[in-house]
Amino acid sequence: MITGLDHIAVAVPDLEKAIARFMADFGLHYDGSEEVESAKTATAFFPLKSTSIELVSPLRGEGPIAKYLEKKPGGLHHLCFSTDDIVADVARLKALGYQFLADAPSPGAHGCQVIFIHPKSCDGVLIELSQPGDDHH
Amino acid sequence: MITGLDHIAVAVPDLEKAIARFMADFGLHYDGSEEVESAKTATAFFPLKSTSIELVSPLRGEGPIAKYLEKKPGGLHHLCFSTDDIVADVARLKALGYQFLADAPSPGAHGCQVIFIHPKSCDGVLIELSQPGDDHH
Repeated sequence: MITGLDHIAVAVPDLEKAIARFMADFGLHYDGSEEVESAKTATAFFPLKSTSIELVSPLRGEGPIAKYLEKKPGGLHHLCFSTDDIVADVARLKALGYQFLADAPSPGAHGCQVIFIHPKSCDGVLIELSQPGDDHH
Repeated sequence: MITGLDHIAVAVPDLEKAIARFMADFGLHYDGSEEVESAKTATAFFPLKSTSIELVSPLRGEGPIAKYLEKKPGGLHHLCFSTDDIVADVARLKALGYQFLADAPSPGAHGCQVIFIHPKSCDGVLIELSQPGDDHH
């Protein structure tokens, strides 16, 4: 029986740089690395307390997901980190050189305020920051 | 401060079909849908108990991640579901029409047995199944 999501795999060109990014810049807990000879990979683990999979599809055939699906059959689209102070985190990450897709956060699902980091700032991974709104469940 | 991973977003062309897949085929708990007018998306949520981000990079410049990085700067590579009986789940999913990248599970990280479902069976998402080995931490 499938019992849960074991991990989300993120391909990175430079493991040490990426470990530093996910630890220092994104604040995750680093739980060690492992070389997997059979898969010819070097891996690093960051355990997460709880999260969710969010399926996203175009609303009435419009929007950014519709554009994405013009080129691909679907796929892993982005990671979203929660923050308790999105304005401060955007300022902190901008000072570190991260580029964003918008100048300021805007409303997302569940009444959150959200903003996206440009994939070119994160080795090709689209990353969203989200601060819960009052109606977050 | 970034406080954790809020969600992993998966782009899908048909939300109802994808909800059915993640519920019935992959056994996740479905926690409802929401239309986000501002983002022009329809979304569906599947809360997860705990998981981890696994960064993967090529070992000595070889292997499947090295091939992936020939085409892309990096990116969200795959989702891995844990299972307590990988042989039974592979048989069950094969009977449902899922195609796999190998005939049988093989050793992965942490002494797990792993196998990958072909992305074309999952709207372009590469999905791994993993059964923990005796040395799983």
